[in-house]
Amino acid sequence: MKHIFIIGVGLIGGSFALDIKKLYPESTIFGIDTNASHLDEAITLGVIDHKATFEDLDKADLAILAIPVDASLEILPKVLDHISDTTIVFDAGSTKEDICAAVKNHPKRRNYLAVHPIAGTEHSGPKAAIHNLYKNKTNIICEVEETAFKLQEKALKLFSELGMRIRYMNPKAHDKHIAYVSHLSHISAFMLGKTVIEKEKNERDIFDMAGSGFESTVRLAKSSPAMWTPIFKQNKTNVIETLDEYINNLKHFKKLMEDEDFDAVYKEMETTNHIKDILNGIQ
Amino acid sequence: MKHIFIIGVGLIGGSFALDIKKLYPESTIFGIDTNASHLDEAITLGVIDHKATFEDLDKADLAILAIPVDASLEILPKVLDHISDTTIVFDAGSTKEDICAAVKNHPKRRNYLAVHPIAGTEHSGPKAAIHNLYKNKTNIICEVEETAFKLQEKALKLFSELGMRIRYMNPKAHDKHIAYVSHLSHISAFMLGKTVIEKEKNERDIFDMAGSGFESTVRLAKSSPAMWTPIFKQNKTNVIETLDEYINNLKHFKKLMEDEDFDAVYKEMETTNHIKDILNGIQ
Repeated sequence: MKHIFIIGVGLIGGSFALDIKKLYPESTIFGIDTNASHLDEAITLGVIDHKATFEDLDKADLAILAIPVDASLEILPKVLDHISDTTIVFDAGSTKEDICAAVKNHPKRRNYLAVHPIAGTEHSGPKAAIHNLYKNKTNIICEVEETAFKLQEKALKLFSELGMRIRYMNPKAHDKHIAYVSHLSHISAFMLGKTVIEKEKNERDIFDMAGSGFESTVRLAKSSPAMWTPIFKQNKTNVIETLDEYINNLKHFKKLMEDEDFDAVYKEMETTNHIKDILNGIQ
Repeated sequence: MKHIFIIGVGLIGGSFALDIKKLYPESTIFGIDTNASHLDEAITLGVIDHKATFEDLDKADLAILAIPVDASLEILPKVLDHISDTTIVFDAGSTKEDICAAVKNHPKRRNYLAVHPIAGTEHSGPKAAIHNLYKNKTNIICEVEETAFKLQEKALKLFSELGMRIRYMNPKAHDKHIAYVSHLSHISAFMLGKTVIEKEKNERDIFDMAGSGFESTVRLAKSSPAMWTPIFKQNKTNVIETLDEYINNLKHFKKLMEDEDFDAVYKEMETTNHIKDILNGIQ
């Protein structure tokens, strides 16, 4: 792997770049981004070696697409148009159904692997890129059988070197389940932040009372709207389903409190404490 | 400060015990708890030196009440009945209106300081006790003027030695604001955990897809129902108000998605990103 192209040099693409450069010191990392200042920043920070254009993609051994999921629908076909027969391309988007559909009939479909690394932080941009972001993280691969065997192998070798564990799913199941364990968490955090900020308008000093519990629960409300809006748009049906269930659970909890049924309130929490074992299981 | 009594030898009381022993190595730490195995565990772990009873409280220089807020309403008057005129007693409960009312007319009201240290973890019991839990944390003191001046001074000296910053509030304002920045976060996390666990019943492997974002947002769902049920009961009116606002914000977000108004979805998140500055401010 000599020529690596990172399309979108932010947290996700930049973190791939840093680890790949460490694994393959002789490789050259090229960056493509619509944001010129991000490209300059990525060079200054040593995240990429050179700027590049789509025309340069014919020399790519590997191209990683790490841009908002709406842009991916347009850019992935364009990337496939420019690469050689031996290039492997993967994306890192949080939705998989639309992107798999977008390239279903592309002549270079077999050069593409649909990937979702379950990794990230609430920060964004090239300066958010870090080493080892992907270590011990789950990497979901969809429609693996649509990718050429030799190119699958190339990508899987890299994921293994990065320390990731692989799970195979179909795009429909991926989008449904990820709505629960990822997309809903973000809305829950954003709306918690909103509820408290709205209060603060009138009542000063309220944040002086906030501790680490609030901070942890609201952390994802720092996330990038430019990244998350297209995810919610693409995964609209599933996300609305999770929101319906979440709102119903909150209403039920409120009703128990209004009815002063605190035995039931206790049981709601006791049952959910089971999350401890589940979270231990995923660590 | 020679004789320190910790009533409730769990996370909160035990962490006070550990730091006080370090600050005052010549002091003796006595533990009172209805849970006999917790007392034994606290001795084994070196969290307390000896078990004690309410009758021993007459020799206390300091007594700290760190038990569920419903139990505090009964136990605080009993503690005040047993102490000497020079003992300072403070509690650590997450609600302040009911407890201040409960001892309003007690002859030893001036020996009590109403305190809420904004500190904790999602763990509980003596084994959860840790050093430096209170360092750089906010400590809210209510009705300070109801406590004898010399005893205020004694407590404030300790809080300063523990590294806490002090905020003074009235109990009503405390309970209203803490509902937003603490109590609502817990319900939000518990119901998120519930929503995802319910899904998992039918769909295996879903948690394999969960990453650090979900883990952070759901962390508080590990909290103790025995501690939290009485808090929600005592702060019912305020908590229901925050739940109403939170549910309305979630419904509004869902409506924007249903209407496909993704510009507005973007703006909801962009506005709430302001939480970054606020959280930086509290660190």
